[in-house]
Amino acid sequence: MGPHPAVAAIRLAVRRTLADLAAHAAPGGAFAAPPPTPPRQVSADPTRLPRAQAAPGAPLVLVACSGGADSMALAVATAFEAPKLGLRAGAVTVDHALQPGSADRAREVADRLRGLGLDPVEAVTVAVGRQGGPEAAARTARYTALEEAAARHGALAVLLGHTRDDQAETVLLGLARGSGARSLAGMPPAAGRYRRPLLEVDRAATRQACAAQGVAVWDDPHNTDPAFTRSRVRHEVLPVLEKHLGGGVVEALARTARLFRDDADALDVWADQVERELRDPADPEAPLDAARLADLPAAVRRRVLRRAAVRAGSPPGDLFARHVEAVEQLVTGWRGQGPLHLPGGVEARRRCGSLFFRTQTPNA
Amino acid sequence: MGPHPAVAAIRLAVRRTLADLAAHAAPGGAFAAPPPTPPRQVSADPTRLPRAQAAPGAPLVLVACSGGADSMALAVATAFEAPKLGLRAGAVTVDHALQPGSADRAREVADRLRGLGLDPVEAVTVAVGRQGGPEAAARTARYTALEEAAARHGALAVLLGHTRDDQAETVLLGLARGSGARSLAGMPPAAGRYRRPLLEVDRAATRQACAAQGVAVWDDPHNTDPAFTRSRVRHEVLPVLEKHLGGGVVEALARTARLFRDDADALDVWADQVERELRDPADPEAPLDAARLADLPAAVRRRVLRRAAVRAGSPPGDLFARHVEAVEQLVTGWRGQGPLHLPGGVEARRRCGSLFFRTQTPNA
Repeated sequence: MGPHPAVAAIRLAVRRTLADLAAHAAPGGAFAAPPPTPPRQVSADPTRLPRAQAAPGAPLVLVACSGGADSMALAVATAFEAPKLGLRAGAVTVDHALQPGSADRAREVADRLRGLGLDPVEAVTVAVGRQGGPEAAARTARYTALEEAAARHGALAVLLGHTRDDQAETVLLGLARGSGARSLAGMPPAAGRYRRPLLEVDRAATRQACAAQGVAVWDDPHNTDPAFTRSRVRHEVLPVLEKHLGGGVVEALARTARLFRDDADALDVWADQVERELRDPADPEAPLDAARLADLPAAVRRRVLRRAAVRAGSPPGDLFARHVEAVEQLVTGWRGQGPLHLPGGVEARRRCGSLFFRTQTPNA
Repeated sequence: MGPHPAVAAIRLAVRRTLADLAAHAAPGGAFAAPPPTPPRQVSADPTRLPRAQAAPGAPLVLVACSGGADSMALAVATAFEAPKLGLRAGAVTVDHALQPGSADRAREVADRLRGLGLDPVEAVTVAVGRQGGPEAAARTARYTALEEAAARHGALAVLLGHTRDDQAETVLLGLARGSGARSLAGMPPAAGRYRRPLLEVDRAATRQACAAQGVAVWDDPHNTDPAFTRSRVRHEVLPVLEKHLGGGVVEALARTARLFRDDADALDVWADQVERELRDPADPEAPLDAARLADLPAAVRRRVLRRAAVRAGSPPGDLFARHVEAVEQLVTGWRGQGPLHLPGGVEARRRCGSLFFRTQTPNA
């Protein structure tokens, strides 16, 4: 008898991610590190927790683990799969210090992770600020801690336990912002050193896998706290969508995310190419020819204009679709308008058939 | 005192659409038809219903009118604006014959429309079939009747009363299907002879405009019948999204639709260009070079593959993302697979580094 289907699905997803990491870890796909030692014991029991370890010098992957079912299932599967691919599996758990007893909880999670055979395991306490609201501030503190831990241990990658349900929630939150393909593209499976092996796995499967393997999990009270927007999406919005639009909404949202990521990537390729043709890469303030911009499809033109504004100093987070559409009017709705003032003190202006973007020197 | 703000907003939206139609109605933007006759009376009362008429030979726009607030508001505004642009304004109301008394209702709506100064006005009774469910069948019958009426009267365009709220509902329904940018792009403002002048106007504004002008409206009982998916989206799903994701969801969804329409249009331009480069337009079965397909961004590659399958005879409505992804595996996951069988009896096969799409002759 093989492992529980949920365990098998999660192991497969993790194996794919780790195999990809291992193949790209060193030039030619080979490691400088010594080959992995074979598992010390082979057991027919599919729920047995692995004790195989890669050699001490092998590349390390770190699992970011809250102690919840999704990241615990990820940690178990990583401990099982990593040694077979010549990788070491470690973990980091972040104590946000927002609730009484959270430090004890983090230590408990770290102990469980060690018990699963992960090594090294760290519990890191962070100070959560206030910028951008409670969710964004906790997120910022958490990623900073993960970055630092990865650097400290020289980790090849940090694995995150986001599931298909998390992806669906992210798409809905992006939809509510109405900011286009990139925000509907959800969370990428790979970005920098982060990997999300479980994006195609249901949250329910992570719970089943933990139960089948006898792994204790901790339910983050934030996950059911209606003060958090994501929690409201999870508990109030998605069930209503499932009920009225028919089942499979989570899957449809996740598929939407994949399609939009591909669309956004393709349009970025096009915008890159236009930029190379239109402007001198050595001069960030080189003007853009309005006639050539007018010939582009709107989706490409707006991406090129957005980049020009960002390059001139407009902060990407403050530059909204309406700003870019106003700049576009200098191309498609030209009637001699004056200069436009964009976030970050950037001025966009049309003169002699060209668009100029420049930072205004304050009170020069 | 000017007209009520809702009346002004709707007139402006209609004027823009009609001006665009008038400008493109004849080569050079001029009409062959005689210029419009001036209004017979000028009144300072903004709620006065217009009686101005364009000359009998002037181009005609037909308003598709259910008698509901959205299409009645559209009809009043069109009757007001069309003559000023040298256009005649007529209307068609479709009796779906699904409820007792619907024929009387349609005659009543037609009388109201004549009272608003529209001419010609027709009430057309259709037979609704069953294909695709009640909503789709009613829609098919309605558009067939509109097409026939437009042809009968030689209409330049048919105006539809869809509002921003309808657009948001359409986006949510597309999202639930998970079928990518084109389905999230919602309803286009212009397609063939159809125009949707009110896509940026809220449904509430159409009700206010009718009330302000003393225009009686009819509430379609289908709009509140929970058996209809769209009705459930309107009354159950959108209010929950508004409550939990913050206000402005309808606007965000409508903006999403605009952005995705632009994205989808740009990617279609790219796919067109690739098709021209990759295949002989005279030969619908010309093979596609796999190596060149492999170099394309996934979003463009899939669009090219989809078109090739449709050209070979696969019905677009039956060809799903998973079919196209399977064909893509012949390019990006090639390991000597056999031929794929696509809807409509189309076979996709890779041979000698090229992809071939052909219709299988049944039992030849």
